[in-house]
Amino acid sequence: MGARELGLPMQVVSPHPQDLPAEVTIWEVGPRDGLQNEPETVPLEVKLEFLQRLTDAGLAVVEATSFVHPRWVPQLADAAELLARFEPAAGVRYPVLVPNMRGLERALDAGVTDIAVFASATETFAQRNLNRSLDEQFAMFEPVVGRAVQEGMAVRGYLSMCFGDPWEGPVPVAQVVSAGTRLLEMGCDQLSLGDTIGVATPGHVEALLKAFRLAGVPVDKLAVHFHDTYGQALANTYAALRQGVSTVDSSAGGLGGCPYAKSATGNLATEDLVWMLDGLGIEHGVDVDKLLETSVWMAEKLGRPSPSRVVRALSS
Amino acid sequence: MGARELGLPMQVVSPHPQDLPAEVTIWEVGPRDGLQNEPETVPLEVKLEFLQRLTDAGLAVVEATSFVHPRWVPQLADAAELLARFEPAAGVRYPVLVPNMRGLERALDAGVTDIAVFASATETFAQRNLNRSLDEQFAMFEPVVGRAVQEGMAVRGYLSMCFGDPWEGPVPVAQVVSAGTRLLEMGCDQLSLGDTIGVATPGHVEALLKAFRLAGVPVDKLAVHFHDTYGQALANTYAALRQGVSTVDSSAGGLGGCPYAKSATGNLATEDLVWMLDGLGIEHGVDVDKLLETSVWMAEKLGRPSPSRVVRALSS
Repeated sequence: MGARELGLPMQVVSPHPQDLPAEVTIWEVGPRDGLQNEPETVPLEVKLEFLQRLTDAGLAVVEATSFVHPRWVPQLADAAELLARFEPAAGVRYPVLVPNMRGLERALDAGVTDIAVFASATETFAQRNLNRSLDEQFAMFEPVVGRAVQEGMAVRGYLSMCFGDPWEGPVPVAQVVSAGTRLLEMGCDQLSLGDTIGVATPGHVEALLKAFRLAGVPVDKLAVHFHDTYGQALANTYAALRQGVSTVDSSAGGLGGCPYAKSATGNLATEDLVWMLDGLGIEHGVDVDKLLETSVWMAEKLGRPSPSRVVRALSS
Repeated sequence: MGARELGLPMQVVSPHPQDLPAEVTIWEVGPRDGLQNEPETVPLEVKLEFLQRLTDAGLAVVEATSFVHPRWVPQLADAAELLARFEPAAGVRYPVLVPNMRGLERALDAGVTDIAVFASATETFAQRNLNRSLDEQFAMFEPVVGRAVQEGMAVRGYLSMCFGDPWEGPVPVAQVVSAGTRLLEMGCDQLSLGDTIGVATPGHVEALLKAFRLAGVPVDKLAVHFHDTYGQALANTYAALRQGVSTVDSSAGGLGGCPYAKSATGNLATEDLVWMLDGLGIEHGVDVDKLLETSVWMAEKLGRPSPSRVVRALSS
């Protein structure tokens, strides 16, 4: 029998343990990272309602879309129209991914003030994803980030393959710190450390975060982005919280990547994260009922159940 | 793209962090706790092959079956025949659940040397599950455990509802320590702390284990038994490892409870646990490929996919 339908409160033992942050910012990536990985393009009207529902659920950051060329991500080809039609709520951030200078220009034309760039921590993925060496990748991003900063934008740097890379295997911690530092030095105000293929485990997370600390990077510059491919995302998140990380990426309902196929790449579900944060007594500002309704609604639109355990346990 | 099919080793950063155990005993509960929750009774031949496969996969403890009255658990009504026909492997433990003195006698008749009893930490669940008060429950178990110890048996005490109870809500830590201590004092050599409805979160786990330590219970007497109902099982396990717990219950393929229904009660999947232990550099002795084959085989027998993320990512 589930706890909630019986009115059982979630488990809160103490306001929050001393070694954990008092508050966490959830960086909701469903509309961008989730929908760009859906096999079918979601209609613009559904996307608009999705953004509104996530806003109403209290999320403070909702990554809205991407200006990646429609040839690569046709699912988000409607980015400009989406932004033109969506009414942003006061106090909520709606960052947009931009891949390069052309993407930045489109973002500026759309009145965007909050962007993210997406870099690789490994040589091979830089080649495969951007057709550039690691150095060439940073050379490409430097003027993009510089221009964005000049325009007064907030700029997040995503760093992918921070734990393992499908071609290179385990990625050395020092290499990740070096790549991440370059993004911060060129002007990114935050670095999101991505476990793109889901192979991180808690000890590795701890080691990487300690290495950033030793390199002098303040932990409030860091966010974590885990994939639940091997079921490790929440354990990894807990390890990151223990190291002081207070920005966590997740996706409503675990959207992104088909959970029933081989090579699932599902994002950590926001609901599962919220459940843990509630139990830990960590503030997050999200109305879990509204979020849950949103994920159930989106699952209906997509025609398949949410992979989130919390959504599965509390709905249907 | 998955890591394993590309030959990527799991992520091991260090032999193992100093604050974690070097070795973990996985207490495999699939054949008992898993199969007793299956809507359909699995044929005896399949159960025998399941025990053999789990043994071949290197599991050191395989909870084999239960002598609960077939009226309550018809799925395991073949316990005596199963034990008569199964050839135990040297060095492997095959504990059997016994509910009461009658069950103990049946276990003794079957030549069992390793048992478990199943108690509640809450008054309401003791009433609902055993039709007894908390005190009456312990009064019933005392002679059972006493006799088993006299017969030279190993006796594990399961304590259920250690975090939340569907009727009582959050369960006070002091109450759980008190109930658990009674089981140890009557002769149980190990106590398995069960999150029967899956509501535990890592801070609560830490608080409960610290309370047992303060009560003078050595951590090597404790095991943890988490359910993944709300996706927290592995994060909770990591929190328990950090407190020094080195026996963890799990179920091959996450067997037990239907993962797609409301009120899912799925056990932590052994594969997801093994993946994390590998990443943490903690020894466990399990051959994950053989285990995976076993879970895929069992999922075929049951006619539905395993809820384990690792099984899902690496198979099909």
